[in-house]
Amino acid sequence: MEDRCSFGERLAKAVLAKKNGVCVGLDPRVASLPEGLKRDLVSAGGAENGAAQDPQRISQAVEMFCCEVIDAVCDLVPICKPQAAFFEELGPWGMVVLHRVVLHARKRGLLVLMDAKRGDIGTTAAAYAAGYLGSGLQGTSAWSPWGADALTVNPYLGADTLEPFTKRCAESQSGIFVLVKTSNPGSSFIQDLEMQSGGTISQRVADLVESLSAKTRGELGYGDVGAVVGATYPAELEQMRQRMPSTWILIPGYGAQGGAAADVKLGFDSRGLGAIVNSSRGIIFAYEQAKYRSQSGRESRWQDAVRRAALDMIEDLA
Amino acid sequence: MEDRCSFGERLAKAVLAKKNGVCVGLDPRVASLPEGLKRDLVSAGGAENGAAQDPQRISQAVEMFCCEVIDAVCDLVPICKPQAAFFEELGPWGMVVLHRVVLHARKRGLLVLMDAKRGDIGTTAAAYAAGYLGSGLQGTSAWSPWGADALTVNPYLGADTLEPFTKRCAESQSGIFVLVKTSNPGSSFIQDLEMQSGGTISQRVADLVESLSAKTRGELGYGDVGAVVGATYPAELEQMRQRMPSTWILIPGYGAQGGAAADVKLGFDSRGLGAIVNSSRGIIFAYEQAKYRSQSGRESRWQDAVRRAALDMIEDLA
Repeated sequence: MEDRCSFGERLAKAVLAKKNGVCVGLDPRVASLPEGLKRDLVSAGGAENGAAQDPQRISQAVEMFCCEVIDAVCDLVPICKPQAAFFEELGPWGMVVLHRVVLHARKRGLLVLMDAKRGDIGTTAAAYAAGYLGSGLQGTSAWSPWGADALTVNPYLGADTLEPFTKRCAESQSGIFVLVKTSNPGSSFIQDLEMQSGGTISQRVADLVESLSAKTRGELGYGDVGAVVGATYPAELEQMRQRMPSTWILIPGYGAQGGAAADVKLGFDSRGLGAIVNSSRGIIFAYEQAKYRSQSGRESRWQDAVRRAALDMIEDLA
Repeated sequence: MEDRCSFGERLAKAVLAKKNGVCVGLDPRVASLPEGLKRDLVSAGGAENGAAQDPQRISQAVEMFCCEVIDAVCDLVPICKPQAAFFEELGPWGMVVLHRVVLHARKRGLLVLMDAKRGDIGTTAAAYAAGYLGSGLQGTSAWSPWGADALTVNPYLGADTLEPFTKRCAESQSGIFVLVKTSNPGSSFIQDLEMQSGGTISQRVADLVESLSAKTRGELGYGDVGAVVGATYPAELEQMRQRMPSTWILIPGYGAQGGAAADVKLGFDSRGLGAIVNSSRGIIFAYEQAKYRSQSGRESRWQDAVRRAALDMIEDLA
């Protein structure tokens, strides 16, 4: 623990060390698992009926899949982002596996951003923060059972509901990423609304995030409170970069959702810091794409396809 | 499964059968567990250091506590509301216990509203919906590993992100409660903002909720998409009741947070339908209050204090 510093600093150092801001999204949709893993499930009567037949066995396949993805990319990228929903969908077994996947990623030197979009009031928010944010090392004051480095958080309940999270970040050298402008088509419903007092809701949230992040800004220029801004709205991403100079931006929506390299580059500063760009299915399910299915005329191992897709994304963003 | 009907109808029937709209909130804060259960934890080196020392043992105490609370109130009230955060705080063990607590509540005839405030886009939202909403009976098409009757949902990501939840509600005869106006002091930060186009954000969300609920309205007048409106803002609760005539309202904030019976009555229609009023620590930790600590001059069993507090709340709202 001796070199443990604030999340904002740790993320900056990891991005500089790996020379890229790629975040690998771990969204283990059961239907897209590699054939070999699915074959085992079919023989167990699982895959064709989703997770309903045997959640324990499916959870084991998900664990194997996620850990092999981590092994394939851990020397290439700084951070990974498990999507909690795909583990929660598998019930308690899925949550046990989520825990093991986080441990494995950290053991392999990746930062872990838990994408769970939590948000609640007072002591309930504190319980989420204590559950997800911390060192993962039992017996320390910053111990947390899930032990993630950072967590995505929803701001709808108000500025006061972020305080238990930022308090926990300070105690456990962890971070949060607050939803500002999400990548989905309907994100305008609340986020783009113009207020009578001027500006939009997402700008109001962005200003709150920047004020919180500026307070915790480290030597490399960024604090512990990040923002989520989708690659699918490049004009807003550019504005948000300027509006939140101390804030790490998590950019979802690259690749499968339509965001291109030219779009996401607007989130970075001149040193290549300030943003991490997430790709989930574009990397972890690369073997579904014809271009990664074979290599040198032979059928690819799915793990090799994952690695080549991660390398291609790094090159695309360079 | 033969008499299974829509969530809106099932909730109405349960409220009519029990003759009250009380929802017992299961927020098992470890520090407030009854002395007897805590003593076991202290001897195991647990309670004084929170959940850090032995999450498995603490989770077992939480399970025992929640199941005994359920046993104490299940013949009195229609519905209970586990707060997911306090289980998630205990890590994978807590999630196993959450599953068992939901099963126990349903076995005892209570409807279960999972308070997890989930929200995400597209297939991720669908994964949350599939995980939490459903019958809990394996082998059925509406099976879900957690098996709750309803789930609280956050609308910040947009109207499109509610669709996977409402689709699942229709498939599995379950419901959602969308955050409209929350009970915390800072809920004004986004929810009360006046839009340039007129009205507030919470009114905009309320109109969406009502349109979704009206589409699924049952014979007793209420649909499957509910709203969360805090007891701490009675004027808004009254307006929201009128604005959302087809919508079940979950009212948090009664009791410990300051909402009184006169406040929450504004959420009900003339038949005593249309609202459920949540109390968490006021009921489940009633033994911390002097008035429930003894009965007829003798020290109360904590379970008796829980039951008496539930009866008092029912009477207060009558």
